Amino acid sequence: MHHDMVPSDRVEHVAVFGRDGTRLGTIERLMLDKVSGTVAYAVIKTGGVLGSHHHYPVQWGALKYDVKRQAFATELTLDDLRAGPCEFDEDNFDWGDRSQGYSHPRYWTV
Amino acid sequence: MHHDMVPSDRVEHVAVFGRDGTRLGTIERLMLDKVSGTVAYAVIKTGGVLGSHHHYPVQWGALKYDVKRQAFATELTLDDLRAGPCEFDEDNFDWGDRSQGYSHPRYWTV
Repeated sequence: MHHDMVPSDRVEHVAVFGRDGTRLGTIERLMLDKVSGTVAYAVIKTGGVLGSHHHYPVQWGALKYDVKRQAFATELTLDDLRAGPCEFDEDNFDWGDRSQGYSHPRYWTV
Repeated sequence: MHHDMVPSDRVEHVAVFGRDGTRLGTIERLMLDKVSGTVAYAVIKTGGVLGSHHHYPVQWGALKYDVKRQAFATELTLDDLRAGPCEFDEDNFDWGDRSQGYSHPRYWTV
């Protein structure tokens, strides 16, 4: 069955797998352009119970939903994300001040 | 301070006020067009502790964030929403089958 739409709360917290099959992390949130109502990018939260978390911006178009895995797939790998161009510092995430690069990050495209 | 972006999880559950100042309800979720990554519409959940809930689709562009109230404002009223063009039945909301009008509803525009 084909669906054109996806609810925002069905995207958040969904797993993301890289092109080598590795689980990169989960979608932490989507960043929306207020005026156009477009998803500018998704924030991927990596890491887990054994390590620290990292937060990377990835272009919406670089994420494809994989119905079988019920997860997103991307052509990126964890090494790609680590190599830049942008990482967010969790400690500096401030809802009241997203002038620190959240508005116009150099997010990952594929 | 001006922000171009807003996080999806900062939009969900935020209150919405109508043009007459009445609290219409809250934003339950955003419906995203998968391919374009555009917010097609927001689902407004009305009602509260004393009554049943109703769910209405409202165009993203019809919602303006009011910094002072930390809520969204719209030119619509509760009567406008009730008058149509579309209402979702909570009992029929099915994540696996959104062919029941969720993909292309006749949502409210202003």
